Amino acid sequence: MKTLREGDLVLLLSRDRKQFLVRLCPGRILETHRGRVAHDDLLGRSYGVEAHSHLGCSFVALEAGTSDLIMKLKRATQIMYPKDIAYTLFRLSIVPNSRVIEAGTGSGGFSLAVSRLLGEGGCLYSYEANADTQRQAQKNLSDLGLASRVLFRQRDISGGFDETDVDALFLDVRNPWMYLAQAARALKDSGFFGAIVPTANQVVQLLEGMEIEGTFGQVEVEEVLVRSYKTVPGRFRPLDRMIAHTGYLVFARTVSPVVSRAGYWLDRRRRKHEGILEAAYEEDA
Amino acid sequence: MKTLREGDLVLLLSRDRKQFLVRLCPGRILETHRGRVAHDDLLGRSYGVEAHSHLGCSFVALEAGTSDLIMKLKRATQIMYPKDIAYTLFRLSIVPNSRVIEAGTGSGGFSLAVSRLLGEGGCLYSYEANADTQRQAQKNLSDLGLASRVLFRQRDISGGFDETDVDALFLDVRNPWMYLAQAARALKDSGFFGAIVPTANQVVQLLEGMEIEGTFGQVEVEEVLVRSYKTVPGRFRPLDRMIAHTGYLVFARTVSPVVSRAGYWLDRRRRKHEGILEAAYEEDA
Amino acid sequence: MKTLREGDLVLLLSRDRKQFLVRLCPGRILETHRGRVAHDDLLGRSYGVEAHSHLGCSFVALEAGTSDLIMKLKRATQIMYPKDIAYTLFRLSIVPNSRVIEAGTGSGGFSLAVSRLLGEGGCLYSYEANADTQRQAQKNLSDLGLASRVLFRQRDISGGFDETDVDALFLDVRNPWMYLAQAARALKDSGFFGAIVPTANQVVQLLEGMEIEGTFGQVEVEEVLVRSYKTVPGRFRPLDRMIAHTGYLVFARTVSPVVSRAGYWLDRRRRKHEGILEAAYEEDA
Amino acid sequence: MKTLREGDLVLLLSRDRKQFLVRLCPGRILETHRGRVAHDDLLGRSYGVEAHSHLGCSFVALEAGTSDLIMKLKRATQIMYPKDIAYTLFRLSIVPNSRVIEAGTGSGGFSLAVSRLLGEGGCLYSYEANADTQRQAQKNLSDLGLASRVLFRQRDISGGFDETDVDALFLDVRNPWMYLAQAARALKDSGFFGAIVPTANQVVQLLEGMEIEGTFGQVEVEEVLVRSYKTVPGRFRPLDRMIAHTGYLVFARTVSPVVSRAGYWLDRRRRKHEGILEAAYEEDA
Repeated sequence: MKTLREGDLVLLLSRDRKQFLVRLCPGRILETHRGRVAHDDLLGRSYGVEAHSHLGCSFVALEAGTSDLIMKLKRATQIMYPKDIAYTLFRLSIVPNSRVIEAGTGSGGFSLAVSRLLGEGGCLYSYEANADTQRQAQKNLSDLGLASRVLFRQRDISGGFDETDVDALFLDVRNPWMYLAQAARALKDSGFFGAIVPTANQVVQLLEGMEIEGTFGQVEVEEVLVRSYKTVPGRFRPLDRMIAHTGYLVFARTVSPVVSRAGYWLDRRRRKHEGILEAAYEEDA
Repeated sequence: MKTLREGDLVLLLSRDRKQFLVRLCPGRILETHRGRVAHDDLLGRSYGVEAHSHLGCSFVALEAGTSDLIMKLKRATQIMYPKDIAYTLFRLSIVPNSRVIEAGTGSGGFSLAVSRLLGEGGCLYSYEANADTQRQAQKNLSDLGLASRVLFRQRDISGGFDETDVDALFLDVRNPWMYLAQAARALKDSGFFGAIVPTANQVVQLLEGMEIEGTFGQVEVEEVLVRSYKTVPGRFRPLDRMIAHTGYLVFARTVSPVVSRAGYWLDRRRRKHEGILEAAYEEDA
Repeated sequence: MKTLREGDLVLLLSRDRKQFLVRLCPGRILETHRGRVAHDDLLGRSYGVEAHSHLGCSFVALEAGTSDLIMKLKRATQIMYPKDIAYTLFRLSIVPNSRVIEAGTGSGGFSLAVSRLLGEGGCLYSYEANADTQRQAQKNLSDLGLASRVLFRQRDISGGFDETDVDALFLDVRNPWMYLAQAARALKDSGFFGAIVPTANQVVQLLEGMEIEGTFGQVEVEEVLVRSYKTVPGRFRPLDRMIAHTGYLVFARTVSPVVSRAGYWLDRRRRKHEGILEAAYEEDA
Repeated sequence: MKTLREGDLVLLLSRDRKQFLVRLCPGRILETHRGRVAHDDLLGRSYGVEAHSHLGCSFVALEAGTSDLIMKLKRATQIMYPKDIAYTLFRLSIVPNSRVIEAGTGSGGFSLAVSRLLGEGGCLYSYEANADTQRQAQKNLSDLGLASRVLFRQRDISGGFDETDVDALFLDVRNPWMYLAQAARALKDSGFFGAIVPTANQVVQLLEGMEIEGTFGQVEVEEVLVRSYKTVPGRFRPLDRMIAHTGYLVFARTVSPVVSRAGYWLDRRRRKHEGILEAAYEEDA
């Protein structure tokens, strides 16, 4: 059983579901809306236990999960939601030892999640044009001991990326269609490309950009929705409200230009119309 | 640039979006609905290129992503969908070096995704009562070179798990409420618990079981929905049909029984009703 | 072109999308968060025009639609949402001259929508156990000139309904499964039954009750979700948040007990299991 | 109790949920995938009873609801789904005695639903450019005895509509933005405008058109999603698949051009940007 010690990170959860993320330090006090909690009351105990504020209100001490850490980041920008991060990590097949590029760094939510997965062998190259934004993200990750796996590059990406042959590349920028050639040059053959944009107009521009650029195949556009439920067993039902939109996720693979022009990512009707359908076969997709 | 060699795994994608997963072997031929493709036509080339069948139909050669690998598994049972696997991996905070229990093994989809994340230091303990089912899953993972990170245990879990202090535990069984005490004993303090069940009735039984068991806190029930779009830029819209339901995901953390009884995971109205609300504060959750 | 006159009902909409429903009366003043609007500024003008408060803030005068009227009702209880009312009216095939029962009356939202559809020939019989609640609903409808088409019956429905052979019957009560026999007696052959309940537990109880009662067929359970979008053409996307749950809608038809026992509303697997499947045919539903 | 007679419309439902819509006629036989059903076996009986085919398979006889009638229409074109029709009828506040314009007629699904609501006093003016399409729709409605409330006009609508001062107008055409001036001229002040389009690109064009046209206010874009559930009480859960997209619904009201230019339908940020925000007040919408 792990004993809580100085320097450990603890997520304190109040009964009204407010969360406080603290790094334990002897003598220190956490101020909450329900009174003061002494770090000393937690040191030497274990995760999962209860602590009390000076007003007698109780808190439970949990180890913070990846999702908790992201929601607790100091935000310099709009953050990417855990649901979108989770799905993107998976769709980009990010695993230990992966080499990954992201732009922009933003508040570091995606950076945090990627860096936790990379293990000692992988690397995240994180580009951001705004120096203040990146500085905050870097601090966020340093505080969590995750900065060693991330190379921060404070730079506009229109000039391209320094790396080549990376496994995956993710764009969380306003105009991702402006950086497709740069992305294609940085990715390995059959590499994993992803982007998130909030509006349908941007998706349309990105899809048009991919057609023109000509090295992206198997393009997919998806939205992830998470529906949460009340957890009272006798009154099981969805919560009244939900987050209805965060962004559209666009995924693709780098392929040879010949393949892309052949229309692998076009749908059936489109290909028929453009006369690039293989005549001998009826399409079923 | 990586050159395709004997033993490499290639995902061949036809223009009608059929997918074929092949391990390259000189002299071997892939039979498809659109003719025969010779492995020799791919050996020595790179991912992202085009190959042709003897009928002149073209295929693109991609590296298989985690999602592709799961969808291509030989299935002994109903599989868990990539969207649910992706979200569960994230909510259970599975990272390199994690020690994870799952039951049952099923067709090995979740096992596959976990084992790709574990790196050399972690371990997945995979329990399954049905020997045939587990044998198939084990073969599936061996074929992908991922079996070394998984300890398969062919056993009914009512007698408990061999491991203790694991970071995360996931139940994909018909009656997860029957194994809550066993799960709590195997998990570390503040460990990550997850389960998937298809029906609302099962969620209700699981929630009731957690109340009785008394060592689970911060319980959440969620559904993940993925909405896919047509990728034609001039006609951007959702696809006509979608997968509307796969399962309810239930997540929780192990806490001390004192904390659980104190009602951390009960909602506001419930706690008020049960008189365990802290009087001095208005609840906001 | 219609000229606004004394007694006309006007929906005043401010630029920040607050809505005010007023019945025009010479000399009267509407107090708003943006200043006072004189009814006299609207009398003699037409719908669609702009009026100004004494602070210079502008308002547009619209005719209130059914949905606006429902959202503006004085509420004695939780109201049924327009999306659910719209779908229920349709699924119950309520048209001019229909004879309809509802219980309970609640705040009169469903009553309002039904009574607008009935024309002069139809009738709504609206039951409600709580006298205060029904009085408020009755006042709500009277104010809109719709009460003449509604017969309010202040009564507990466990003793049954006075009417028989009604076209449609809708239950918005806590325990609809307790009134199924009463509902069946009131409905015509092949009549339209509907109910709304907030929790999955209630749906399960209602479905069980229908099995036992034995005169309901073609049972369906549905949820209606409405997703709203930002209306800025250059930034088209869903709104950030949505109403994720209001209730489960249950619809059925009254059939002869023979038919119901034959399992018309059971699904394929269930019927197979119960041995009531027609042997000669493979089921496809 | 109503007795089934010659000329009555009956929906026959087989156990595998196939539906057959028949008008009863002595001596006539219905051919089904499960054998022949004689109309004579139904004549003189009542709705809700069971009939048997010559193979012994059973069918239940129901009165067809509006939704059933729409799904059974002979289709000349893609039909509008019942969920969208239901919501549109409601949002356009169509009630007995309404005067309504639709274009195009299509297969007559929306026409059918509107005409059932109009009662004897209302009228639907249904425009359609394609003569064959409209002829089929007209036949569909005549067969159901609903054609008397509909005036079919076989005409391109670019030249405008014959009617003025109509209560509601609905466009189900490829390029609704081309007919906004015509629509505005036909609608009464504060009239109800609606349109359905399948793609996001079309929504954007329609929103842009409304900005330019300048007589539409309170614009809203919505999608209606219906999620259906298994009706087995012990295994309550959503169906595996659902219809994920049919179309975007766009609603608006006609207002004076002054009002529209004032930006009533623009969102907060947009208005701020365009300097047309009322300075004194913080916007909350």
